[in-house]
Amino acid sequence: MQESAPQNQQEQQGRQDQEGRQDQKAQEARPSRQEQPARPAGPGVSRRSVLRGAGVAGAGLGMGVGLGGVGGATAAAAPLPADDAPNWPERQGKTMIGVPFERRETVRFGMIGLGNRGLAMIELLLAIPGVQVTALCDPVREKAEQAARKVTAAGRPAPALYTTGEQDYEKMCERADVDFVYVATPWEWHYPMARAAMLAGKHVGVECPLAMELGHLWALVDLSERTRRHCLQLENCCYGRNEMRVLRMAHAGLFGDLLHAAGAYIHDLRGLMFDPQYYEGPWRRLWHTRLRGDLYPNHGFGPTANYLDVNRGDRAVRITTFGSPALGLAAYRKAHMPPGHPSWKESYIESDMSISLVQTAKGRVIRLEHAVSNPHPYSRLNILGGTKGVFEDYPPRVYLEPDMSDDEWGDFARYAEWDHWLWKEHANPPGGHGGMDYIMLYRLVQCLRLGLVPDFDVYDAATWSAPVPLSHASIRAKGAPQAIPDFTRGLWQKPRPGVDSPKPPLG
Amino acid sequence: MQESAPQNQQEQQGRQDQEGRQDQKAQEARPSRQEQPARPAGPGVSRRSVLRGAGVAGAGLGMGVGLGGVGGATAAAAPLPADDAPNWPERQGKTMIGVPFERRETVRFGMIGLGNRGLAMIELLLAIPGVQVTALCDPVREKAEQAARKVTAAGRPAPALYTTGEQDYEKMCERADVDFVYVATPWEWHYPMARAAMLAGKHVGVECPLAMELGHLWALVDLSERTRRHCLQLENCCYGRNEMRVLRMAHAGLFGDLLHAAGAYIHDLRGLMFDPQYYEGPWRRLWHTRLRGDLYPNHGFGPTANYLDVNRGDRAVRITTFGSPALGLAAYRKAHMPPGHPSWKESYIESDMSISLVQTAKGRVIRLEHAVSNPHPYSRLNILGGTKGVFEDYPPRVYLEPDMSDDEWGDFARYAEWDHWLWKEHANPPGGHGGMDYIMLYRLVQCLRLGLVPDFDVYDAATWSAPVPLSHASIRAKGAPQAIPDFTRGLWQKPRPGVDSPKPPLG
Repeated sequence: MQESAPQNQQEQQGRQDQEGRQDQKAQEARPSRQEQPARPAGPGVSRRSVLRGAGVAGAGLGMGVGLGGVGGATAAAAPLPADDAPNWPERQGKTMIGVPFERRETVRFGMIGLGNRGLAMIELLLAIPGVQVTALCDPVREKAEQAARKVTAAGRPAPALYTTGEQDYEKMCERADVDFVYVATPWEWHYPMARAAMLAGKHVGVECPLAMELGHLWALVDLSERTRRHCLQLENCCYGRNEMRVLRMAHAGLFGDLLHAAGAYIHDLRGLMFDPQYYEGPWRRLWHTRLRGDLYPNHGFGPTANYLDVNRGDRAVRITTFGSPALGLAAYRKAHMPPGHPSWKESYIESDMSISLVQTAKGRVIRLEHAVSNPHPYSRLNILGGTKGVFEDYPPRVYLEPDMSDDEWGDFARYAEWDHWLWKEHANPPGGHGGMDYIMLYRLVQCLRLGLVPDFDVYDAATWSAPVPLSHASIRAKGAPQAIPDFTRGLWQKPRPGVDSPKPPLG
Repeated sequence: MQESAPQNQQEQQGRQDQEGRQDQKAQEARPSRQEQPARPAGPGVSRRSVLRGAGVAGAGLGMGVGLGGVGGATAAAAPLPADDAPNWPERQGKTMIGVPFERRETVRFGMIGLGNRGLAMIELLLAIPGVQVTALCDPVREKAEQAARKVTAAGRPAPALYTTGEQDYEKMCERADVDFVYVATPWEWHYPMARAAMLAGKHVGVECPLAMELGHLWALVDLSERTRRHCLQLENCCYGRNEMRVLRMAHAGLFGDLLHAAGAYIHDLRGLMFDPQYYEGPWRRLWHTRLRGDLYPNHGFGPTANYLDVNRGDRAVRITTFGSPALGLAAYRKAHMPPGHPSWKESYIESDMSISLVQTAKGRVIRLEHAVSNPHPYSRLNILGGTKGVFEDYPPRVYLEPDMSDDEWGDFARYAEWDHWLWKEHANPPGGHGGMDYIMLYRLVQCLRLGLVPDFDVYDAATWSAPVPLSHASIRAKGAPQAIPDFTRGLWQKPRPGVDSPKPPLG
């Protein structure tokens, strides 16, 4: 499976063409109910997929570097352009930039995937006024039932359950009493589920990343534009208290002209990845047998892209990635897994540490790191630097002129007045991850109920996820930079609100 | 001047050929006293050079990417080689790897450049047993005289002074009573002065970086091999207490298999660069009008290269650099410089933040950062990660299995037993930079007096300095990776001692 990108690219291309023809019928309109979403296009080696046999459609990593790799740009004497040439497939529908949700009193959620993440998010959703959870889907019936008990325990009507096989989510998406589909499943399912939701006329929110292949990212952009449904990355770290405070300070000019930022997912997941209970099967570990690079860029890329107004005045143009050797998971297995454990058949290729550099159209640099298979305290780095100073997280510290001097970091608490209005309204939000999960969901529901433009859209979701295939491609090409597609098709230049949107009049 | 690399490359090539023929005479032997070192080959726009008129020989940045740029390596399907193909010019003399100094009771130093740095180092040298300072050279006579007074105030004989014009250092290098030439001058003078010293039969140590052009780095490697004189980078940060402790812990296996490291020069130099007194003229600021990239990589690259045994079992293979916009110096000038100040004629192109990624033959990744023109507390990052844990500096903190757990950083003081023997012998060394300057000089003098192999050599100096031209070339090529030459010509694979050399029997 691994290292067979060329073949897979062909397969992917074939699948895309097929889908493209199929989806032409639905252009710019709510799609027909007869339309069948494609079978899952993940790598087809998850436990469930293996159980299903040979039914998985092709799979393939399809690194998709055909979309404008920076080929042959090694000549030192080449001029330094202000930007790379634009390069994108023809638009199939109007842009989704600035498109508001329809106003609604109540938001009815259908949840796909009720593992650790889905279950936690249900609890938070039930705490938000105006939310109903009407349908739940998971092929593991006891997980769906456990989640249903949470709903009824909160005094709400029992949700409908969809637990008959891996494709039952398609039926759930068709329900008339679902407004928004929430996808919290293994990564290989994100693309087909987001696709099915939009084809069924539903807005959809997807846990990170949006998809694992460049072709799938483009397909979701196209589908969002054609179906007029929003396809959102549920990027909780964009709603972290520190991230939102830094965002507001940056946009208010406290950092001067912005120059560079850094974000990361540094999280020692070795124990969880080998835990037989935590994940439903070995899907997350198996990704380490398929890809090198940044498997999970969103928690770093989302907040830093917001700081730099990516897709709102600036654009991520190219990325290069250097990856370290892949030793951590094998070392952990050797120390902890008994002989005969299924993991002994796995060959891990994912770099223990991958570092990516992203350059924007305005010349800023974003550094992204991914490291989940070695001992290291948790960090998302969360760094922003400009002509007037710098912020770094873990622990938070700040150095801004004229407030600080003499090379002494200052206390970030000093800038509490810059907290986002969401954090001023919800000083102690419930739930995990420091409250940012709740803040994200609260704001999502607010936008849905008030009929507002969401804080981010399918273009952000695709941009933040693009490092997954592109970092792998760059590492394979010995660090050669890869072009990041302009998913907005030229509309990135217009400033517009994002995560720092003003507080709506009705709160 | 700027952006004319192709023309300059030709000029540089021409100069190298000429020098090559000239220097053939001196091959493998102490060179003739009649041999005239070439005129300084710096960019020729320093204040002093301007005063000298048109006498500067060609100059030119000569980015030298001809030495094996990673051309056309953008194909995603390309195989991932263990290493890049070796590629180096023919050797002109035997290697200097493992070559000891001649044993001597007393080491007689000649110093070129007696500004801030040279003056501070004289004081430290005078505190070390067995050192004589016999000659001083600076075209600013009062600076040489001030340094001479330090020597005589310490009860030593008055050193000879060389203050007649900018080429007087050549005469100083010819003195029979100089064993070691110490170069602490503006960067553009490092190459011609190191060259002159070796051609005069002297070992030479040079402040960072060794030279600014790839051709000059190769020329110094060749000259060291031909003249059998050592050409050392006086890289003080390699002797920092934390760096040496981490080095010993790494080599003892406490970090497991090493994966990645990071080093930097993050130092807000804006005030100093515009200070009319601190530097002799605007030379350092002027480099910001000529190059993008990492102007000063050694303080980050030296220690991290040591951690990973670069040139001692591993090799730095390629580098890519992304640079931010260049706004900091212009903003500082606008805020602080009066109209009519000479700086208003300068156009700064050097990135405020440049981030480089270096890959080694063993696949490890070294990240280097350079940022001197924005507000930021001082940092060299100083990070090392392996399969068993990670160290990060500023402030120092460590996370190693099995000592630490639960994502909580541990106290680096806990590992004080791992201090290098030099730091155990000199717990409170005199001088600046936390004592590492003194430790470096003490060890240098020890090696010279005992006839030991120096802790690093011309190959390390060239490797650590190569990011200067290569980072510029990579930024110009929109981040395309540049090949780092193998200055050892294939001899990097052999493990050998370096900065963690054992304590000599005679101490």
